[in-house]
Amino acid sequence: MAKTWATLGVDLHLEPARSRGLRRGLTDALRDAVRTGRLAPGTRLPSSRTLAADLGIARNTVADAYGDLVAEGWLTARQGSGTRVADRAVVPSAGGTAPRRRERARPAYSLVPGTPDVAAFPRAEWLRAARRAVTAAPSDALDYGDPRGRPELRTALAGYLARSRGVRADPDAVLVCAGFSHGLRILGTVLRARGVRTVAVESYGLDAHWKLLTDAGLVTRPQPYDELGTDTRGLESAEAVLLTPAHQFPMGGALHPERRAAVVEWARRTGGLVLEDDYDGEFRYDRQPVGALQGLDPDHVVYVGTASKSLAPGLRLAWMVLPPALADRAAAAKGRIDTCGVLDQLTLAEFLDSGAYDRHVRASRLRYRRRRDALVAELARRAPAVRATGIAAGLHVVLRLPPGTEQAALRAAAWHSLAVHGLRRYRHPEATAEQPDALVVGYGTPPDHAWSGALDALCAALPE
Amino acid sequence: MAKTWATLGVDLHLEPARSRGLRRGLTDALRDAVRTGRLAPGTRLPSSRTLAADLGIARNTVADAYGDLVAEGWLTARQGSGTRVADRAVVPSAGGTAPRRRERARPAYSLVPGTPDVAAFPRAEWLRAARRAVTAAPSDALDYGDPRGRPELRTALAGYLARSRGVRADPDAVLVCAGFSHGLRILGTVLRARGVRTVAVESYGLDAHWKLLTDAGLVTRPQPYDELGTDTRGLESAEAVLLTPAHQFPMGGALHPERRAAVVEWARRTGGLVLEDDYDGEFRYDRQPVGALQGLDPDHVVYVGTASKSLAPGLRLAWMVLPPALADRAAAAKGRIDTCGVLDQLTLAEFLDSGAYDRHVRASRLRYRRRRDALVAELARRAPAVRATGIAAGLHVVLRLPPGTEQAALRAAAWHSLAVHGLRRYRHPEATAEQPDALVVGYGTPPDHAWSGALDALCAALPE
Repeated sequence: MAKTWATLGVDLHLEPARSRGLRRGLTDALRDAVRTGRLAPGTRLPSSRTLAADLGIARNTVADAYGDLVAEGWLTARQGSGTRVADRAVVPSAGGTAPRRRERARPAYSLVPGTPDVAAFPRAEWLRAARRAVTAAPSDALDYGDPRGRPELRTALAGYLARSRGVRADPDAVLVCAGFSHGLRILGTVLRARGVRTVAVESYGLDAHWKLLTDAGLVTRPQPYDELGTDTRGLESAEAVLLTPAHQFPMGGALHPERRAAVVEWARRTGGLVLEDDYDGEFRYDRQPVGALQGLDPDHVVYVGTASKSLAPGLRLAWMVLPPALADRAAAAKGRIDTCGVLDQLTLAEFLDSGAYDRHVRASRLRYRRRRDALVAELARRAPAVRATGIAAGLHVVLRLPPGTEQAALRAAAWHSLAVHGLRRYRHPEATAEQPDALVVGYGTPPDHAWSGALDALCAALPE
Repeated sequence: MAKTWATLGVDLHLEPARSRGLRRGLTDALRDAVRTGRLAPGTRLPSSRTLAADLGIARNTVADAYGDLVAEGWLTARQGSGTRVADRAVVPSAGGTAPRRRERARPAYSLVPGTPDVAAFPRAEWLRAARRAVTAAPSDALDYGDPRGRPELRTALAGYLARSRGVRADPDAVLVCAGFSHGLRILGTVLRARGVRTVAVESYGLDAHWKLLTDAGLVTRPQPYDELGTDTRGLESAEAVLLTPAHQFPMGGALHPERRAAVVEWARRTGGLVLEDDYDGEFRYDRQPVGALQGLDPDHVVYVGTASKSLAPGLRLAWMVLPPALADRAAAAKGRIDTCGVLDQLTLAEFLDSGAYDRHVRASRLRYRRRRDALVAELARRAPAVRATGIAAGLHVVLRLPPGTEQAALRAAAWHSLAVHGLRRYRHPEATAEQPDALVVGYGTPPDHAWSGALDALCAALPE
């Protein structure tokens, strides 16, 4: 039942059943009245006793609401002159009403790779872990901290990466960062400072990563790519190499064992550094996960993993495991400015330690695998001319198209209101590898309710 | 009551009363047995039925624990051969047992300025806000996001800053960043790209800030400082100026109204830019807060505020309000790499909107004011030769010492196991202002239980 605040002659509606309580309701109503000018500056408010009687609520509630608004600067309270609407002109908040930028019309469906199904983020489990972690945290965790990140998280990551990815990690050599790109920027700085000039990269990858290296003053040089994956021979003139060994992005294969051996041998022989981008190593469907390259030679491989695919990009949490000789330099390059919020770090540590991370990864793996199976089956039925490759792992597949049809397929996808990427945009400008027509389809991206619609739109866009 | 896992001949202790439940207890015990080698690779485990009967627990619990450990890679399950300890050598986790770096022996007390009492962080209130915010967030909040930060937070900040600090803010011109330093690094990049060479700074300040500007390719030039605060005349050869107008750091005064007017006039006349560091504007004790300079001229002032003093540095959350002409450039300079975790952003938005932020600031203001009063009273009694200045606001005071005694006081403080800073370290190397002997005492820093001890140590270290 709404009550009118008759004492002031102002039409303030209070709903006592409001979920956040009477005090909040009264505070909000009064603040709105001041903000909108219904209560003019200088207006004297009734005493808390009078107003409480008028509204039929406790006097303390009114006094508390007045106190809140005095603290916020909307009201003033002076001995002898009671409580008044503050004199100083409150600049109207542009807050609630400012015109937002117009959003571009977005396609109905997205199969753009690189994002997991964020609707499946385990909110309740995460909040439980947050409650435990924040409650148990020592106070000094909330202070300015170690550039490497919270020790609880570095320890939890070292344990998790050892058992799940075969990474050899000392917590002191772990560096928490705000995403793979952030880590790569730090590594670019460290490499440049070491005198590195050239970083070999894969023929197919993300131009944003190449640009980060270029911005650090480095030259990227693509390695050949063939049916065994990225060719890691002929690395001689490079001093570092950026690879996705467990699951080439975007092609989808695992680096061939001979190529794995070759790159480690090169690193040992020349003192070169391997940057291992293990962006979705958790998701492998048809056989045992491919262990991290780092396990073969922790002194020459920097391992980089991320929560962006396994949990959500919005967490902005990733991690590096560095060779001991580089750990301090990377921490210094990161510095105190780029530290990540400690509450999420502590929560992730608890999430890992409690087994919630493993449970979430396992459940996600099952869901994504079902999607992949549905995708492959539907393609076989509706688009037999299209060959799905890179299907054994991860959150995306590459659909090989008949020669010359990539652009047409992208136009058809747009026509069906589907966002999807062609393979061409992932090709290094200096790559010499063959250039097949293909789509890179991120089947992890849509929320469950949009998945079948997205799949349908994709099939409709493909050549039959 | 602990149960022994007799079936395996392994001394596994299960405590059914464990707070996290039987499944977790069993999983942990079994994992430990594998990790420590008590269960050798290849060992066949009893069936879940057998083990459940042996332990007197539900079969599902055992099956779930086995499932967890298979997922984690400790066990393998194969049709026909049951569940076994995984063959592949699990690299021992350095996790729990790695030797930590030796911490330097820390003084018993700290009155180093720049940190609030982190023990007073409102954990329960924050967790409540987190629960509401994370539960209510749209899924796409968890995806890669706007470099400026979440719109919920930018809107909440625009409203809060308008009413509490007199800032004129459109949410589109707000940029969320990971602390003041992060914001200053972004601003340094933007200034340099605009062709700025020289940034005027205050004679007293933080060398970390000056270094950030220098690293961006800018020259810092100190302004004179006198009893009216920083002299903002003679800015002609600078193109930007970095100021702490509400509460000079570390001197503690508010910028004189004439000096406020002068700097705004300079900015308008020359197109110069004022960088307003409002690090602790919430904490003012003896009169109305000094409004933000930005309110006088939003087109020429960049306002920067932070949660590091009002809540905790560990959150890594701060905010800039930019002139419209700079907003997009600053967002581009920040880029997608440096985005802050969205969960904390959403939580802070809820914290602001629910009034919890105001309540926390009000309670903190009262606590810090009491500390300040106790400090001033104790000094008058025990160290009458020392004059406390800059006491009207903030979380620190400047204690003016008899000439030539700063170093001796610092040595005496160290002797009493008290960390505290001399004024000298805050002086710009090219400053020409007078160089008084003084200590900068951060009375916000200690937790409550250490406050009286810290105050006692301070008084003992001061000249009588």
